[in-house]
Amino acid sequence: MKLGFVGFGAQAQENLVPCCLTLAGVEVLGICDQNPARRQDALKMLPSARVFSDAATMMDSCDLDAVVVACYPSGHYEIACQALDRRLPVFVEKPPAPSIGHLDKMIESARHSGVTTGVGMNFRYASVTKRLKALCEEQVNSVTLRHFCSKPTTPFWDHTCLLKSFLYSQSIHSLDFLINLCGTVRQVTTVGENIGERIVLTIVLTFQNGVTASLVTSNTCPHFVFDFDVIAMGSRLISSSALWSITVSEVGKAYHLDEAKRWSDSWEHSPLASGFERSGYAGQMNEFICAVREQRESEISFASVRPVYNCMAIIEEQMAQPVQALSRIAS
Amino acid sequence: MKLGFVGFGAQAQENLVPCCLTLAGVEVLGICDQNPARRQDALKMLPSARVFSDAATMMDSCDLDAVVVACYPSGHYEIACQALDRRLPVFVEKPPAPSIGHLDKMIESARHSGVTTGVGMNFRYASVTKRLKALCEEQVNSVTLRHFCSKPTTPFWDHTCLLKSFLYSQSIHSLDFLINLCGTVRQVTTVGENIGERIVLTIVLTFQNGVTASLVTSNTCPHFVFDFDVIAMGSRLISSSALWSITVSEVGKAYHLDEAKRWSDSWEHSPLASGFERSGYAGQMNEFICAVREQRESEISFASVRPVYNCMAIIEEQMAQPVQALSRIAS
Amino acid sequence: MKLGFVGFGAQAQENLVPCCLTLAGVEVLGICDQNPARRQDALKMLPSARVFSDAATMMDSCDLDAVVVACYPSGHYEIACQALDRRLPVFVEKPPAPSIGHLDKMIESARHSGVTTGVGMNFRYASVTKRLKALCEEQVNSVTLRHFCSKPTTPFWDHTCLLKSFLYSQSIHSLDFLINLCGTVRQVTTVGENIGERIVLTIVLTFQNGVTASLVTSNTCPHFVFDFDVIAMGSRLISSSALWSITVSEVGKAYHLDEAKRWSDSWEHSPLASGFERSGYAGQMNEFICAVREQRESEISFASVRPVYNCMAIIEEQMAQPVQALSRIAS
Amino acid sequence: MKLGFVGFGAQAQENLVPCCLTLAGVEVLGICDQNPARRQDALKMLPSARVFSDAATMMDSCDLDAVVVACYPSGHYEIACQALDRRLPVFVEKPPAPSIGHLDKMIESARHSGVTTGVGMNFRYASVTKRLKALCEEQVNSVTLRHFCSKPTTPFWDHTCLLKSFLYSQSIHSLDFLINLCGTVRQVTTVGENIGERIVLTIVLTFQNGVTASLVTSNTCPHFVFDFDVIAMGSRLISSSALWSITVSEVGKAYHLDEAKRWSDSWEHSPLASGFERSGYAGQMNEFICAVREQRESEISFASVRPVYNCMAIIEEQMAQPVQALSRIAS
Repeated sequence: MKLGFVGFGAQAQENLVPCCLTLAGVEVLGICDQNPARRQDALKMLPSARVFSDAATMMDSCDLDAVVVACYPSGHYEIACQALDRRLPVFVEKPPAPSIGHLDKMIESARHSGVTTGVGMNFRYASVTKRLKALCEEQVNSVTLRHFCSKPTTPFWDHTCLLKSFLYSQSIHSLDFLINLCGTVRQVTTVGENIGERIVLTIVLTFQNGVTASLVTSNTCPHFVFDFDVIAMGSRLISSSALWSITVSEVGKAYHLDEAKRWSDSWEHSPLASGFERSGYAGQMNEFICAVREQRESEISFASVRPVYNCMAIIEEQMAQPVQALSRIAS
Repeated sequence: MKLGFVGFGAQAQENLVPCCLTLAGVEVLGICDQNPARRQDALKMLPSARVFSDAATMMDSCDLDAVVVACYPSGHYEIACQALDRRLPVFVEKPPAPSIGHLDKMIESARHSGVTTGVGMNFRYASVTKRLKALCEEQVNSVTLRHFCSKPTTPFWDHTCLLKSFLYSQSIHSLDFLINLCGTVRQVTTVGENIGERIVLTIVLTFQNGVTASLVTSNTCPHFVFDFDVIAMGSRLISSSALWSITVSEVGKAYHLDEAKRWSDSWEHSPLASGFERSGYAGQMNEFICAVREQRESEISFASVRPVYNCMAIIEEQMAQPVQALSRIAS
Repeated sequence: MKLGFVGFGAQAQENLVPCCLTLAGVEVLGICDQNPARRQDALKMLPSARVFSDAATMMDSCDLDAVVVACYPSGHYEIACQALDRRLPVFVEKPPAPSIGHLDKMIESARHSGVTTGVGMNFRYASVTKRLKALCEEQVNSVTLRHFCSKPTTPFWDHTCLLKSFLYSQSIHSLDFLINLCGTVRQVTTVGENIGERIVLTIVLTFQNGVTASLVTSNTCPHFVFDFDVIAMGSRLISSSALWSITVSEVGKAYHLDEAKRWSDSWEHSPLASGFERSGYAGQMNEFICAVREQRESEISFASVRPVYNCMAIIEEQMAQPVQALSRIAS
Repeated sequence: MKLGFVGFGAQAQENLVPCCLTLAGVEVLGICDQNPARRQDALKMLPSARVFSDAATMMDSCDLDAVVVACYPSGHYEIACQALDRRLPVFVEKPPAPSIGHLDKMIESARHSGVTTGVGMNFRYASVTKRLKALCEEQVNSVTLRHFCSKPTTPFWDHTCLLKSFLYSQSIHSLDFLINLCGTVRQVTTVGENIGERIVLTIVLTFQNGVTASLVTSNTCPHFVFDFDVIAMGSRLISSSALWSITVSEVGKAYHLDEAKRWSDSWEHSPLASGFERSGYAGQMNEFICAVREQRESEISFASVRPVYNCMAIIEEQMAQPVQALSRIAS
């Protein structure tokens, strides 16, 4: 599996390239970045790779099996189109596209070219997510997810709007996590505020299967938080903190000393857990690479994140036009 | 402070009576219960107390400063009225009344008689709640509260409706906690389901000051859970688990080794913390008793829980008549 | 059960008196303290009690079933002797005696008078200790206990020696906990230092049944820590933190998803856990009061803490005379 | 930096090779394993590498900058000697040698050849270890380390003795961690037992600088545990669990609400922490590779683990000949 990387920023340097290097049979032939200093960094890291300043040139001059793109959302769109034009499988970091319109074109283009696509949705593949799904067996009743971070506090990428930057860089992960867990969204209800550089949102998703998920998210926390509680069929409460540990409480389970209350089953990673499994990067790249090998659509295809973009569009709309009466006003 | 207790069930035996006995200057003169076995239990616990089978008789024959009532909601209403008729200060366990109509009569009666009233809202006075309030200084942005429990799974008290039983026995606490923390409610949005004996609700409260609170609550967890995350002004995240510990993360704070990320300030109770402070029972009873001594309205007066009853009525209504379009339907 | 209290300091005010008031059938008839202000406090707390400045006078003028003493170690000795002379059951806070010689006289006196005695060894009765014992069924292999605190940093009570003050006020608890859990001590090995006001000790106890316990203890921690790990037969690891939670890991146990690794059973107190059970004060006072009623020796009799005093004497000796070669010197 | 690997078992596959692949400028030219199936695995993982069944052949036919060895302790010795004979820098997994005699020959050989050597002592380089050292600034008072695992339960490698297998595979890590943190060992005191397949040891190390460390370790726990508490100068208690989190309590520090008690500073990894930094594998390999580049002795040279072997020898001796009277016998 011969890969070419476009964009050698922090995400590529710290996660994507190292993660791919640890996967069986993967070779990195080329690295492309417009910044000369980063091309130097790339050569320091991988002396045997070829470096490029232009993605199309790399695609044309290396015999690549797939391209992995991690730059700007607008760049993601352009480079994905260049790859699809060449019938070259392409993986792009989130957000895969700067707007729902762009995403639709990418989906259409992928369908037309018939090659494998992928988006960087690592939370779906985190170790605790996989355990959660096995425990739930698709019988979730309710989810509450707390996703806190410290940025963005100014609009970035090509956006002029802070809220959009926040949704496209942060909420895309938590929304995708919830949709991947719960299924097709029926309703979106957004309450919260975006005053100055502070965003604090409560987003309630109701799904076609009756599940309710509430996402509380903000850019005002000094560090990254990703904690959730899931109520699942069989009267189980499944809680997880920091993608590190998971705790299951279950009505009627036999416990030590025959006590029926206050006992839980807890799991956490080994002190020596290493690599890219825990964070889901390994699972995400592995799914993409297997799909390329098997010439099939990946689980994380461009099309798979379409429902997330739809939610983000509704959230933007709801925040723009304060809904008059979401519900009866308390008097 | 001479107290008479009405109802000597588990809550009185385990929390209210022991808690009051540990407060300075409190004497328990009389205990009333219709059940002869419980009157025997009362005498075993407090040999010097007088026992009664009728509350009015106790009020008339003991020289009481106040009555503490912990029986059925309908009993709460009746006995509270009997006490107020006698101009006797009265504290009732939650729920103080079986309906909003009854509560309004109790409030009116209390206003007319001018004596101190109280309701068992201990969560307001838990140690972590007091720390939380001091940390926030009324500048909350957002709250997410998870309140899980294992009951009721059948209607109880005089209710025929499981949802009402759940709201009046469980949600009354979490709603009161949120209202006490955040202020006047502007909107209530309820999503969730009550199928058979299973209740899973997500309740979003928006407050007049712009704060948003989401309460996720269910009767499907084997044990009691009361965890919350609060985002407060100054870019602080304040988390608490089990009324035991509290953690504060704050943007820009100077930490060990000058690291700005991933450090938090944490507080938890002493291994030897004892008594009724942590759970808030001491604070609640102390506030009522001080108010009786000072002949003032207590912070936990009948009137103080009127907004909670209002919310519960809206929630019942929203669950009864599925709101058509809370928000734009995701297509 | 009519009790008289001697000493109305913090321990009596916050734990012993409130705890006893919550026990069935207990009445507090008298409170004795040499300090007039504290006698006023006692009357505020218990208006119906009689107050005294002299313990003997209280014993002679109230019809008491037992005396509870919480003052100075030298006072403990004197007042215990006065009570035993009157054949009055007596409970004393730790340390029960200012020296092993005094303790031996108290034990002899108790044996002669034949009345019930008790010492304030609450850690034996903490909720997690009771669970631990039930889980272990006396088949402990090894224990490590971390007991950290912030005092004493100057000699107190009538001691001139800081180490003795530390042992008699702090280590008495951890040593008693270990001896109560593991049985008869065979050897004591002390390493560590006491330089200036800083004490840092590692004490290894080996027991006749082959069990090893290591106690790491210090007066240099800002708050009280009481954490332990127990390895028990059946390849179980039982860990506890802050007398609040307990976690059991067990080789070969069937877990969720059939995973054999990294899962544990965890238990923690309810958010609403109140009263004096968790800290062991209720269990300790209850054992004493039951023993008085049943006219038997209590589990926490003066004699029961003799092995602890023996250990403390050995530790003092080992710290005074640096052992030359505890073991082969590493070259 | 061109590396050849000897031994392609689990440790090489999961940690050493992937970790090295993520380091800047590292190329894996050759992989050697006697097992043909593993050579196939090696080719699947790294199609561009050459595979060998004999280490000497690999060293002679590839232009290597260093060799990384992870096979059997006896193999470690032989292959290290082969590399040193060729003046080729060599890194070996723990244990580097099957006996102290072998280790001494390796140290002498390394000194003679003048090339860089390394041993797999990753715990020294774990993220929490680095934070711990920065916090302590070499002013440790006392350490307690709990190191529990589930194996070995039968002798392995070329050993006939279970205790030796345990010490050489497990305790080598915890002893090295303590010696690296505290300095030169003065005394070793071992208590505990090895009955059948069960090992439960308490090892107390006293250091020349007066520091005391107690290591409680066992092979009877279902999963790997590595938790410690360090008391450091300045009245600080530093605790860590699972190489994941670290908590610092400090006397006299100013906290929220001006409370002086029960507050701590806590740090834990990011939910997305990936790669080989946390477990120390990255730090260990980086130190070796930098030392090779700079043609200097590495911090983890063969000689650097000599004190650990010395301790292990003393522990074996102490367990073989039950010390008669480590200390005064408690009567």
